[in-house]
Amino acid sequence: MNAFYPALAGEFTRLLDRLRHRKVAVVGHARPDGDCIGSQVGMARILTAAGCDVTCVNADVVPRRLQFLVPGMTFVRTDEILRDTTDYAAVFVDSADHARPGDRLKARFPAPVANIDHHISNIGYAEINLVDSGSSATAEIITGLALDHGLTIDAQAAQGLYAGIVTDTGQFRFASTSRRTFLLAAELLARGARPPEVGLELYERESLGKMQLLQHYLASLKMECGGRVCIGTLAKGIFEKTGTSGEDTEGLVDYARSINGVDIGVLIEERADGSVKASLRAKDAVYRLDLVAGEFNGGGHACAAGLNLKHDTANFYQRLLTALERQIAVVDREKKGTS
Amino acid sequence: MNAFYPALAGEFTRLLDRLRHRKVAVVGHARPDGDCIGSQVGMARILTAAGCDVTCVNADVVPRRLQFLVPGMTFVRTDEILRDTTDYAAVFVDSADHARPGDRLKARFPAPVANIDHHISNIGYAEINLVDSGSSATAEIITGLALDHGLTIDAQAAQGLYAGIVTDTGQFRFASTSRRTFLLAAELLARGARPPEVGLELYERESLGKMQLLQHYLASLKMECGGRVCIGTLAKGIFEKTGTSGEDTEGLVDYARSINGVDIGVLIEERADGSVKASLRAKDAVYRLDLVAGEFNGGGHACAAGLNLKHDTANFYQRLLTALERQIAVVDREKKGTS
Repeated sequence: MNAFYPALAGEFTRLLDRLRHRKVAVVGHARPDGDCIGSQVGMARILTAAGCDVTCVNADVVPRRLQFLVPGMTFVRTDEILRDTTDYAAVFVDSADHARPGDRLKARFPAPVANIDHHISNIGYAEINLVDSGSSATAEIITGLALDHGLTIDAQAAQGLYAGIVTDTGQFRFASTSRRTFLLAAELLARGARPPEVGLELYERESLGKMQLLQHYLASLKMECGGRVCIGTLAKGIFEKTGTSGEDTEGLVDYARSINGVDIGVLIEERADGSVKASLRAKDAVYRLDLVAGEFNGGGHACAAGLNLKHDTANFYQRLLTALERQIAVVDREKKGTS
Repeated sequence: MNAFYPALAGEFTRLLDRLRHRKVAVVGHARPDGDCIGSQVGMARILTAAGCDVTCVNADVVPRRLQFLVPGMTFVRTDEILRDTTDYAAVFVDSADHARPGDRLKARFPAPVANIDHHISNIGYAEINLVDSGSSATAEIITGLALDHGLTIDAQAAQGLYAGIVTDTGQFRFASTSRRTFLLAAELLARGARPPEVGLELYERESLGKMQLLQHYLASLKMECGGRVCIGTLAKGIFEKTGTSGEDTEGLVDYARSINGVDIGVLIEERADGSVKASLRAKDAVYRLDLVAGEFNGGGHACAAGLNLKHDTANFYQRLLTALERQIAVVDREKKGTS
């Protein structure tokens, strides 16, 4: 047997012991993405095959794009689980901190049994913490642990875990993509994962409205900081005009980032209620966009961060640009210092 | 040792014997793509490490996007190799037929020693034919053969072969992506392939002009055949307006295909000289777009085909649409017959 996660083997064995014959809640984060839902599906089916009674829990609904992963699975939302007084053993997945699934879910599950995650900022808030920031996706960790322990991964679990890896590696493209990532993907294919279906459902079910949204975004692109930052803005009213919603903005920011010479791409959404949302994406982790987003009460990864401003949105474009300029200057200074 | 291509082992051994101490020309096809250049780089370096003196040959220049794969390599073009009277042993890669590299290169190398390819239409025009249409890429075949035979794949070869696989699987998305594809990708990473660089160079070095071209294409999209066909047209003069060229149209047609409900996406380019070029992409191989393109003297794969019309371009949009409607009717009839 391959040992994909030897350092986590003892703790994972302890988790399986703790969950034996328990009712388990597999809790994902708010606004769930492919790695979140895929990890929930994978973990839920692996635990079910191992004899647990499992419910998946999210603050938000499973996005339309990810529905193909969950047929036959039990996904419930916050209100429902608050009414349910069952003594669940809670397993949090893909949630960098205890509150990422939402404050009400944090209160409902004050002492998670486990926390399985790959975010570098995860400090371990559960009894058993299976955290590896060297992994491309939470789904990668779950796949490796399950294989290391000889657990059954059925075709639906394999498809979910595969979709999680595809999502969080940007289709095997990000720096986190390793030899292990590919070896695990091969094992998932052997167990029933279907790349064409994942590709079709994740990337080829776009609406015409989404294409129009993209068109608006492309038309709005502005080069800043001497071409190192590219910012596009979705002005108020565009969602209504194109028949789209906030969910449809996913991936737009990558167009700004993908331009030659651009180090940081930005998407700004002006919402009808006066709030502002921004997504930041860097080509290189040195830009620590989590810190830039943090200045506006946002957060995320070094290469991919975001923020939501409900108040105090005046001059947001200029203030964000100033923060980015400052951050680029810091990076340039450090580069100079080390060269 | 894994046996990735047991059925080709004998013929590959025979090829290595035939090439020993020879001057070898590794010939790719015209308008080379990532799998062509990547396979040439991989094959050339593997053969060089095995003691051959290798030159890569193409009718066209190595595209800008693929230049990162070839530093230090010898790539020559048709005129140069026609002046060179060396008695090369020719190895054709990724070329479905003898003339795909161009008629002049076919004449220069009338009897190729080998033909390594994954196109289903390849009928074997060389002395030794290493053809496997079950492989996602020619680079996959070369990687598997080299590993099976314990040949050295250095970091540059690994990067080229990895880029070939990424290109021809659409980033591990097409139906041809198999467990073997992932296992070989893992081996290439172990030998120095770098996914972030490949992703960056292939997909994140877009020009602003290319983004504007995309914007024009999106604005031109028309739904046809009840939403099952989506056609976008780049009108005459757009290349000049956006500072782009024909090379920049790569990938545009995928936006049409990616729309929900669309089975076939089409890109039509109206060139300044009055000629017309069309790219056809289907979500499913049943649509046999190679046959549709064939009606206009084009060709390709079942899911990805293309054509070039220099004359007789009047009413092209309508004539192509009629051909597509007819093909969809054939497919629907066959589906009905088997259900």
